[in-house]
Amino acid sequence: MLLETMHIAPRTGTAFKVGAGQTLTVIDPQGEQVADLLCFNAHDIGEALSSGRTLDYASRIYLTTGDPLYSNRSNVMLEIVEDMVGRHDFLLTPCSKDTFRIIYGDTDPHQGCFGNLAGALEPFGVLPDAIPIAFNCFMNVSVDGTTGAISVLPPLSKPGDYIKFIARMDLIVGLTACSALQSNNGRFKPIEYLVE
Amino acid sequence: MLLETMHIAPRTGTAFKVGAGQTLTVIDPQGEQVADLLCFNAHDIGEALSSGRTLDYASRIYLTTGDPLYSNRSNVMLEIVEDMVGRHDFLLTPCSKDTFRIIYGDTDPHQGCFGNLAGALEPFGVLPDAIPIAFNCFMNVSVDGTTGAISVLPPLSKPGDYIKFIARMDLIVGLTACSALQSNNGRFKPIEYLVE
Repeated sequence: MLLETMHIAPRTGTAFKVGAGQTLTVIDPQGEQVADLLCFNAHDIGEALSSGRTLDYASRIYLTTGDPLYSNRSNVMLEIVEDMVGRHDFLLTPCSKDTFRIIYGDTDPHQGCFGNLAGALEPFGVLPDAIPIAFNCFMNVSVDGTTGAISVLPPLSKPGDYIKFIARMDLIVGLTACSALQSNNGRFKPIEYLVE
Repeated sequence: MLLETMHIAPRTGTAFKVGAGQTLTVIDPQGEQVADLLCFNAHDIGEALSSGRTLDYASRIYLTTGDPLYSNRSNVMLEIVEDMVGRHDFLLTPCSKDTFRIIYGDTDPHQGCFGNLAGALEPFGVLPDAIPIAFNCFMNVSVDGTTGAISVLPPLSKPGDYIKFIARMDLIVGLTACSALQSNNGRFKPIEYLVE
């Protein structure tokens, strides 16, 4: 159990365990930053966070306080217990070398949240292919209901804003300070978190 | 190579191979029916269809003619080459026992598209945990851009309408005639397909 606030440097990521009943608070210390969050059952990593099941059961693409986050086996992994921002994304995969190549046209792309999560989760046995759509804390993605067009807008989070989850099973959690300029209003920033 | 139209009975599913360069046509013979489509790299089943990457690269949740469908490794698996309907879903997981239990309140739930896909893909070595969000042909899911609310509406497909894909790699394809009443305007119907 961590009782101090942990720091994730800009464009990096980490992974750690959170026990059932513990809370995880993800903090945006400077505002307008995104944190990609993934989780896996600590006792069976074949069970992973599922956006498709969560959004189907919620009948909503925007989740907030009171909403459960389900696994690919339809078990509740996390539940949002406090949310100062109210806008997060659960549609898009973590940014990656391919994101930067395809969307930004970078010739020497950063490994992105995908690479950071893959590296951080490797010691827990999670393979890159098993990295699903993340719950992207503070990411502000709007959808045009008529055309279906997606726009990535600056996060609504102000300095110090946070979202707090309770774990409903023992989890391995992957968490990043997002590496994509589009998500963060053009500036890379850190993320902080607290497990208690 | 199949040169005859194949039939998928109501509330069932199947799996088959489609070679790179072949086309796959998914036909709705009676109208207002949904077909959940999944695919895996035939030579390495760790590579699977990814809604999160596809929607990110398209910057749209609604896909149609000309749009590529990407894998979790950011390779193009399928490309839509003809689309008579223009409205399909790529947000929601295949319906399952859990869907029917959680959303419909069924006490003795049908195995749904998830169970049908899991059964059909098992001989190819695909495990149930590896079944991602499907490309749900003809499924009409609207999103309220303000609230994020999702509504599952009757498909726009009329009898005989189809969507046609070209395979950009050798694929194992899973395909269903959807088992959820909400998707199909309340009536279970067959699906047909053609590989050529």
